[in-house]
Amino acid sequence: MKYENVSILQTASSIPKKVVTNDDLAKMMDTSDEWISKRTGIKQRHVVTEQSTSDLCVDVSQKLLRQANLPAKRIDLIIVATMSPDYLTPSVSAMVQGKIGADNAAAFDINSACSGFAYGLKIAKQMLTADKSKYALLIGGETLSKLVNWQDRSTAVLFGDGAAGVLLTNAYSNSAGILADDLQTKGRLGHYLTAGYLANKSPFYQAAPTDSANKYFLMNGRQVYKFATENVPGSIRTALRKADLQTSDVDYFVLHQANSRIVERIARDLGVSIAKFPINIQEYGNTAAASEPILLDELVKKKIIRRGNIIVLSGFGGGLTIGTVVLKF
Amino acid sequence: MKYENVSILQTASSIPKKVVTNDDLAKMMDTSDEWISKRTGIKQRHVVTEQSTSDLCVDVSQKLLRQANLPAKRIDLIIVATMSPDYLTPSVSAMVQGKIGADNAAAFDINSACSGFAYGLKIAKQMLTADKSKYALLIGGETLSKLVNWQDRSTAVLFGDGAAGVLLTNAYSNSAGILADDLQTKGRLGHYLTAGYLANKSPFYQAAPTDSANKYFLMNGRQVYKFATENVPGSIRTALRKADLQTSDVDYFVLHQANSRIVERIARDLGVSIAKFPINIQEYGNTAAASEPILLDELVKKKIIRRGNIIVLSGFGGGLTIGTVVLKF
Repeated sequence: MKYENVSILQTASSIPKKVVTNDDLAKMMDTSDEWISKRTGIKQRHVVTEQSTSDLCVDVSQKLLRQANLPAKRIDLIIVATMSPDYLTPSVSAMVQGKIGADNAAAFDINSACSGFAYGLKIAKQMLTADKSKYALLIGGETLSKLVNWQDRSTAVLFGDGAAGVLLTNAYSNSAGILADDLQTKGRLGHYLTAGYLANKSPFYQAAPTDSANKYFLMNGRQVYKFATENVPGSIRTALRKADLQTSDVDYFVLHQANSRIVERIARDLGVSIAKFPINIQEYGNTAAASEPILLDELVKKKIIRRGNIIVLSGFGGGLTIGTVVLKF
Repeated sequence: MKYENVSILQTASSIPKKVVTNDDLAKMMDTSDEWISKRTGIKQRHVVTEQSTSDLCVDVSQKLLRQANLPAKRIDLIIVATMSPDYLTPSVSAMVQGKIGADNAAAFDINSACSGFAYGLKIAKQMLTADKSKYALLIGGETLSKLVNWQDRSTAVLFGDGAAGVLLTNAYSNSAGILADDLQTKGRLGHYLTAGYLANKSPFYQAAPTDSANKYFLMNGRQVYKFATENVPGSIRTALRKADLQTSDVDYFVLHQANSRIVERIARDLGVSIAKFPINIQEYGNTAAASEPILLDELVKKKIIRRGNIIVLSGFGGGLTIGTVVLKF
């Protein structure tokens, strides 16, 4: 049997061991713990020393399968949301598929940056309701340390590495699942946050590089802050309206961890107590597509989020994009 | 009104003007027109001199909208399949969304390399059958010239640049649409075709680079040939069986243009006349995710493919992946 909705069977994370504190960064560049934590809420971030994005995602996948006691061959679909893949080909998802032995799974990567996990939930739901698919792995995984200019104090302090994900199924009939979503893109604002410019150095290429032709993060922090605080509350209201729910029906708002001040501002705008907006940015920094599933997994493992809870997940960032999903856990 | 299937309303392409012939390459490296064309079927390829992947995709999108006389604001979804994006963020699709003014469209990129267009058709279908979405742009766009080592005669002769795509809708009730699909991934074989290794040069990273840590194409041509010829016929048979059709019901097989010998071998294996397998690799080389929509658009514009035709689209390559879609045009 299969059903029209999907539910989250398991959550798992993979966090690199190496911790870089604000004080560590203050030794490398002109910054301070006080400056960073006051403006962003970040106290430390984890960075890879040997692992790649696919390594973290393989680890997440193996944990998900182990927790569910499910053989890899039962997986029908693997989606990895990432903006920091190992290669441009093969995709991270294909590498995961091969390494965990999920021989029956189709695999593809998606890129909508920090909104990738929310977009991925919607895409996975739609793919699972097709045909005979039953089980999907959706993972947000990033090694943003390779996209950071470690000489640039305005961006180097913001980002971290990590991966987390969920095992989704449509094999169970229950009331849990993705109730509604709101996916937005504002490509006109895309230049406010760029990373990973892939230069064309072919002998035939003649165009001069533009100002944003930089492989590292370039961000207009003020404009991204403005974008998020002006648009995310509306996206959350739209998704809740589609689900026929009020903000008061929501147990927890699991927001992308880009900046604790953004989260506080969104909570205030929605008129909801900040207690319903868990924050873990102090430990991980901004991990883009991995940020919401890392937080989700943490809350599930601590039994803060429980079965039956109504959760709003909302990611926002590069694109610029917003992805909001309302789900019953 | 919206319906459970999607149909292709329009097709369009954007091909860079600059042509590089085999003879041009013979001046740059130890190769010859005879060697290249005998082994691959390729006579020339188009390469960008100023454009990026997003420029080509914007051009395709504007053509699609113009042909359909549809305002950009009517588009609900933009998917770009690419392995050669301008940036890691913003996505190519978000750049397209901003540049064409498709303010109401959600946008994300997918990466399953040369299978990206077939995967994208399935994803777009599933996304359009959700909610109130009606119109989607699906574009395969590549500037592979930036992933080619122009000193390596074994791969430099193979690839080209280009973009093409389709305007999809579920707003019409007719018998056209995606009838069935078969998406496969064989991640265990992913190392046979790699490109765009994104090295981690953070001060914290200590792992030694591996042999495949190369930003340019590295390919084991014999193994990729074996993979394609051994698995694509089965994928086509599987998709046709799901659609309750025989090979004899198919008007045209629009296959990924990686090598004319692969296409000929697949036709022979399926017991179908090569006349049903149009080939245009001689003009474009391998354009990865753009290859099937470029060929599709060419056949539609030449009125070779007509309304009501049964078409099999099949892509295969990096991942390694295979994506087959059976559709009624």
